[in-house]
Amino acid sequence: MDHGILFDHSRTARIGLPEAVFCEGKPFEALVELLGQFGRGTGRPILFTRLAPEVFDSMTEDMRAGYDFHPLSRTAYGDKLPQKDKGRVAIVSAGTADGSVAWEAARTLEYLGIRHQVFEDCGVAGLWRLAERLGEINSFDAVIVVAGLDAALTSVLGGLTPKPVFGVPTSVGYGVAKGGNAALASMLSSCAPGVAIMNIDNGYGAACAAARVVNGL
Amino acid sequence: MDHGILFDHSRTARIGLPEAVFCEGKPFEALVELLGQFGRGTGRPILFTRLAPEVFDSMTEDMRAGYDFHPLSRTAYGDKLPQKDKGRVAIVSAGTADGSVAWEAARTLEYLGIRHQVFEDCGVAGLWRLAERLGEINSFDAVIVVAGLDAALTSVLGGLTPKPVFGVPTSVGYGVAKGGNAALASMLSSCAPGVAIMNIDNGYGAACAAARVVNGL
Amino acid sequence: MDHGILFDHSRTARIGLPEAVFCEGKPFEALVELLGQFGRGTGRPILFTRLAPEVFDSMTEDMRAGYDFHPLSRTAYGDKLPQKDKGRVAIVSAGTADGSVAWEAARTLEYLGIRHQVFEDCGVAGLWRLAERLGEINSFDAVIVVAGLDAALTSVLGGLTPKPVFGVPTSVGYGVAKGGNAALASMLSSCAPGVAIMNIDNGYGAACAAARVVNGL
Amino acid sequence: MDHGILFDHSRTARIGLPEAVFCEGKPFEALVELLGQFGRGTGRPILFTRLAPEVFDSMTEDMRAGYDFHPLSRTAYGDKLPQKDKGRVAIVSAGTADGSVAWEAARTLEYLGIRHQVFEDCGVAGLWRLAERLGEINSFDAVIVVAGLDAALTSVLGGLTPKPVFGVPTSVGYGVAKGGNAALASMLSSCAPGVAIMNIDNGYGAACAAARVVNGL
Amino acid sequence: MDHGILFDHSRTARIGLPEAVFCEGKPFEALVELLGQFGRGTGRPILFTRLAPEVFDSMTEDMRAGYDFHPLSRTAYGDKLPQKDKGRVAIVSAGTADGSVAWEAARTLEYLGIRHQVFEDCGVAGLWRLAERLGEINSFDAVIVVAGLDAALTSVLGGLTPKPVFGVPTSVGYGVAKGGNAALASMLSSCAPGVAIMNIDNGYGAACAAARVVNGL
Amino acid sequence: MDHGILFDHSRTARIGLPEAVFCEGKPFEALVELLGQFGRGTGRPILFTRLAPEVFDSMTEDMRAGYDFHPLSRTAYGDKLPQKDKGRVAIVSAGTADGSVAWEAARTLEYLGIRHQVFEDCGVAGLWRLAERLGEINSFDAVIVVAGLDAALTSVLGGLTPKPVFGVPTSVGYGVAKGGNAALASMLSSCAPGVAIMNIDNGYGAACAAARVVNGL
Amino acid sequence: MDHGILFDHSRTARIGLPEAVFCEGKPFEALVELLGQFGRGTGRPILFTRLAPEVFDSMTEDMRAGYDFHPLSRTAYGDKLPQKDKGRVAIVSAGTADGSVAWEAARTLEYLGIRHQVFEDCGVAGLWRLAERLGEINSFDAVIVVAGLDAALTSVLGGLTPKPVFGVPTSVGYGVAKGGNAALASMLSSCAPGVAIMNIDNGYGAACAAARVVNGL
Amino acid sequence: MDHGILFDHSRTARIGLPEAVFCEGKPFEALVELLGQFGRGTGRPILFTRLAPEVFDSMTEDMRAGYDFHPLSRTAYGDKLPQKDKGRVAIVSAGTADGSVAWEAARTLEYLGIRHQVFEDCGVAGLWRLAERLGEINSFDAVIVVAGLDAALTSVLGGLTPKPVFGVPTSVGYGVAKGGNAALASMLSSCAPGVAIMNIDNGYGAACAAARVVNGL
Repeated sequence: MDHGILFDHSRTARIGLPEAVFCEGKPFEALVELLGQFGRGTGRPILFTRLAPEVFDSMTEDMRAGYDFHPLSRTAYGDKLPQKDKGRVAIVSAGTADGSVAWEAARTLEYLGIRHQVFEDCGVAGLWRLAERLGEINSFDAVIVVAGLDAALTSVLGGLTPKPVFGVPTSVGYGVAKGGNAALASMLSSCAPGVAIMNIDNGYGAACAAARVVNGL
Repeated sequence: MDHGILFDHSRTARIGLPEAVFCEGKPFEALVELLGQFGRGTGRPILFTRLAPEVFDSMTEDMRAGYDFHPLSRTAYGDKLPQKDKGRVAIVSAGTADGSVAWEAARTLEYLGIRHQVFEDCGVAGLWRLAERLGEINSFDAVIVVAGLDAALTSVLGGLTPKPVFGVPTSVGYGVAKGGNAALASMLSSCAPGVAIMNIDNGYGAACAAARVVNGL
Repeated sequence: MDHGILFDHSRTARIGLPEAVFCEGKPFEALVELLGQFGRGTGRPILFTRLAPEVFDSMTEDMRAGYDFHPLSRTAYGDKLPQKDKGRVAIVSAGTADGSVAWEAARTLEYLGIRHQVFEDCGVAGLWRLAERLGEINSFDAVIVVAGLDAALTSVLGGLTPKPVFGVPTSVGYGVAKGGNAALASMLSSCAPGVAIMNIDNGYGAACAAARVVNGL
Repeated sequence: MDHGILFDHSRTARIGLPEAVFCEGKPFEALVELLGQFGRGTGRPILFTRLAPEVFDSMTEDMRAGYDFHPLSRTAYGDKLPQKDKGRVAIVSAGTADGSVAWEAARTLEYLGIRHQVFEDCGVAGLWRLAERLGEINSFDAVIVVAGLDAALTSVLGGLTPKPVFGVPTSVGYGVAKGGNAALASMLSSCAPGVAIMNIDNGYGAACAAARVVNGL
Repeated sequence: MDHGILFDHSRTARIGLPEAVFCEGKPFEALVELLGQFGRGTGRPILFTRLAPEVFDSMTEDMRAGYDFHPLSRTAYGDKLPQKDKGRVAIVSAGTADGSVAWEAARTLEYLGIRHQVFEDCGVAGLWRLAERLGEINSFDAVIVVAGLDAALTSVLGGLTPKPVFGVPTSVGYGVAKGGNAALASMLSSCAPGVAIMNIDNGYGAACAAARVVNGL
Repeated sequence: MDHGILFDHSRTARIGLPEAVFCEGKPFEALVELLGQFGRGTGRPILFTRLAPEVFDSMTEDMRAGYDFHPLSRTAYGDKLPQKDKGRVAIVSAGTADGSVAWEAARTLEYLGIRHQVFEDCGVAGLWRLAERLGEINSFDAVIVVAGLDAALTSVLGGLTPKPVFGVPTSVGYGVAKGGNAALASMLSSCAPGVAIMNIDNGYGAACAAARVVNGL
Repeated sequence: MDHGILFDHSRTARIGLPEAVFCEGKPFEALVELLGQFGRGTGRPILFTRLAPEVFDSMTEDMRAGYDFHPLSRTAYGDKLPQKDKGRVAIVSAGTADGSVAWEAARTLEYLGIRHQVFEDCGVAGLWRLAERLGEINSFDAVIVVAGLDAALTSVLGGLTPKPVFGVPTSVGYGVAKGGNAALASMLSSCAPGVAIMNIDNGYGAACAAARVVNGL
Repeated sequence: MDHGILFDHSRTARIGLPEAVFCEGKPFEALVELLGQFGRGTGRPILFTRLAPEVFDSMTEDMRAGYDFHPLSRTAYGDKLPQKDKGRVAIVSAGTADGSVAWEAARTLEYLGIRHQVFEDCGVAGLWRLAERLGEINSFDAVIVVAGLDAALTSVLGGLTPKPVFGVPTSVGYGVAKGGNAALASMLSSCAPGVAIMNIDNGYGAACAAARVVNGL
């Protein structure tokens, strides 16, 4: 079986965002083949997302050596894009359980060469945690909000910052919150104006959305 | 056709909450008959909820004279229960559109003889509106939160008050917020601990829940 | 009954977006009172959205004279914000039926003083319609995509433009498309990276999201 | 990787409920770190919920010795809060399968220092089981009802007790009952007035809601 | 346009249940034509269900004279089937709002020549109302339970009667109960064994199901 | 931990159906305890449903010896109820995949002492399979229809038999059929009159419903 | 306001299907303008679907004269496409209530110049109705099945014909069948192989799908 | 236990499509028995779908030798039908993750003796990939489109080809795309006319639908 994917190599030129490989659901052999083609020093920067640690760990040591792998966010890349001079992105998350998504966004920005900072544990049930960091957050050029459950952080922060805000609902939680639909509906219904939303757990997408803003500065 | 409802008159003795008549969907003739049986001075306090102004307005003047009707909340009663000495309930709503539900709760409390106050327009997109009133809200014995859209007020207030909190999602909004399911899911997923929730638009139920608390003080 | 809304007047200072009034579901008297407070020459710019033509038409001539009303988008304002020097927004819609939402976005931008242009009938079932206009669309600083049904335009355009893209699903259609959930799910699942989504029919929100980008240029 | 959570230590002072750690979905290392920080004799009471027995069992013996762990409810704590003089809570469940949720509520109350009693197997398909215990249940200050499937117990008990009632739908069952949505909808639609509802399986939340009532006595 | 329906006249012979005409959604002209073909004295018994009073009232006096019309249940028939010697069906409803469905069942049984009795207002929030009538209900050969909201009556009655039980969820209610899906899910999840369920508001179907039982006695 | 369930032993006297134990989700220790209390020769007939083969197989040989276990249907009982003289039930299934549910019904009837026969592979995509057996099926006193996917068999058979029909949707299938909701909706919408429906996969319930019919003959 | 739609006039050349105008939801003025541009004798064949009779009736007599309007199907066209020599399509519907959708398909085929025949009232609750017509139906080159409720006709017919089958679920019915989702799920789950499905009520689409088949003969 | 399935052997004669065995969910023993009955050289062509590689691999070597097994598509057959002279089918997929479904369609066509070609990686986020192959695709007699996520390829291709188009939504993706419902809704709402849709992941069904077209050429 041949796993040769028809890559969209002109995408960077066209929209400023190089292609990424979403690994979940891809067969192991396909991932081996793909990881073998790219990697540090090949001059072909590519980002792997949703790459499970147990999958990465069963690659050969050689192959692993060519990649910067980050287990919590399940991301890997070899070469990165050159760092941009302009534009910084804040990633604000509500709770510890939102970490893997927040860091998927952070790692994607790192790979895209965009400066960024992660602000964790800013959930609104303890408002002082957000209040203390608001000034600093507002010094960034775009804000990614990562939250599950009722995602109330989106409205609170959206009402306190003038910057572009991209909300990422997470699938943490149980009962009606299970799978992230409550957070998604909550974010889409946000009473703060102009907050734009990504698919559940799509930290990669939020980073790309923020990159589109930064690329235009 | 006979509309004689089998009333549960012993309910007050049993659970401390007299029966109420939910008018929506009941035929006009049934409502005429019911409103004719009770009313001011009959010594039989009963609450009518979801009584549309246009329905009430088409009753005879005599019949209307026997009732205290409140159009925004669509509630009516003749006699009220005697005012209780102990217990006060705060009703906090996010926006103007939540008014009819907030006032349904307020009117139910009025009818039940429980002191209360309505705090409107406390939505979290402008946090200062809630902050200014928090001290006063916390002087009440129970808090009813009425909010639609993402209902983020529930988590914010639930994290700032030690009092029993009853959330009422409202059906205001459009798109994913239409019908109130986003607000309901958001409230049930609240990251503030111990916030208990009612059915969508159920201001009457929230008042009864608060009354159960007040009755036990 | 008092309809005095607790306005969040400091919002413009805080987040650069003045408050707006969502009229759907508000009682007629409340709208009369609100429209009476603002209007041309009062120096208090405010935007009314979801204001039904039949409601606006039943206002007094005097009151109507103070407003610039646009029936298709159901928007009205008196004074506008001063026009900004920088930043232009393209609004691209798939079909005629998406017009009211596309123009809600356009009118919001007009009110906010942001230059913009509407590109209608760019649905992908006839790709040449989009192809012809792509160059021009890419000269704008942000792109709002308005589409119902399968909303395929979002992915196609998202793969062809490097600019920030904000998708607005519309509620046009029937069967599984009714209410806009198919379009919403489709947009959130877009295979083009970094496309951010608003609630169904939320043209106002998309304009605010684009304004956040333009305000940062 | 650092798992240092930004604890909301002032929460007890603010709302009378100390923070709890929801363990499901947290990485093993994070749980080891957290369990290491607290535990019996540290003077820092904290409650761990949804802590799987197989996770707890793989901690060191030393660490386990510092905790009172309860496998059915999957809860653990080291120190408890001092027992309160006032207020007792009844926990009434419909069937054996609701046990883990009922005991999560019971254990949370135990940790909060609130007296309580669990009444199991009170499902309404055999009404005599509830009837026999009703008098005793009504001697408590608040009632938690835990039920899955059609959750009919909520309405029956809500119509027989004047006390604050908090319903917890459980995820037991199959077909339309799977995941607990049938029970949740049923409880929210209860024909008994003033019954307030928690998220599916949220025994912890129900205990907190009851604690808010007890704290105000 | 021709409204000639291809009637399944052999159905009575095949399954013992003559065809019925569901009127909702049929064009007025089609109903005129159908009502004209049958009616008292034609020797062709047929049942019309969901026939709106305003539609029936706009038929000619002549046509109306040929039918026994019942507005609450929206049913009409001309000739009835001969009364059967064996079998009696109890129809038990929870509240007044369930009346139209309960009476659709009753009228269908009347038309099918099956003896029956309606027991209204047996909702479980006041259990004594059911308790008083249980003995009599158990003297019937099949029981139809009609209930909306949480439909808790189904489980309670299903646990107290050995007779075949057919549950009909009703669409009364609001919020999560709106449209009857909560009642449907609740009934299907009933903890009483062997309770069989019909579509929402399908009083006609429940009567047919009971008729199948009675026809076999 | 004590697994003593409060059995409803009077249920047989009350409704003619002895209690059953639904094993799925119950802890292993609880099942061991329960299986130890009953079993062949104890004179206490009880039915265990959803008892996984791997669970039963890990009981002691002694314990297993006391039960008649049937792996496909996942049912076990020790003593059965005495066989009834009157009444026979046909169980008709659409495909092989519906076997475990069809046999759960058959085994429940066996346990209840009711004669029955299973007719498999009668799906309507090959109508001749049903046609050949229709005469025999119609000689039974009640019919249980077990079908997944579009469950079209229900309407076809419901239109061909005058006997009480109980439909059981099954959870077989994928895509929109996954979990059985398509089959459930299809059955509830059946165009054949008087077909009554059970929860998804509830073969036990269908047998109890048929038993209620047979018990009344 | 300008209603000038950007027509996709090259569509006929590209895919053999000329553009159609879906009228529902379009403003009256837009429809007046569109109907004015086309019509009999203009040599520009165009099909209007979902054109409500009350809308068409309020056009000028002149305008109406230019169109062949069919109220039940709510379709209108001026010129038709020339009749094709090859290919005939059968449209088979389950009940009278499916008429408007069946005739939308028929009228679309008429407009496209494709021979066809409508077979109504073939619902499977009376199988003889379909059996009698099966031979004739199988003489056509493609079959459109129109059915609501449980849409069982799709599987039955799909198992009896070798021709391409296109199913159209209809929105007739109530309760779980309301809006057509039960019929849609049922059709998509059909146990007959190779049955392809259209959106709910999309008779126009089914005709186009059949036309694609006929165009290739 | 007997796994003898009542095969519908006359199906090929009746509808031109021989029976297939859907293996998922069938017990291992049943599959062993079935695979034992057919296989190369038995002259009884039969197709096994959803046959997991790990299941096939645990069959005896002898048994495996009798089958052509294809792991990615999880299909197996012994003998094939004779190759047809007329008719060729194109299978166009959006991304690598859609491979298993695309190849299930391809293998079914191979088994049915119908010529076909698979075109992979034609997703619309990089339109040039589809554009390059459009001419060749249009030389086929029917087109199967396999796509997940927003399935935008369906509308784009449906607007560019005059051939019969059968869409198969796939269950790839996460968040709102999980399980394939977003893709299904998107395809059913396609703005390209006459695109007919199969159940999620139903590559087998799409091949059968295309075979119905090819069989009629």
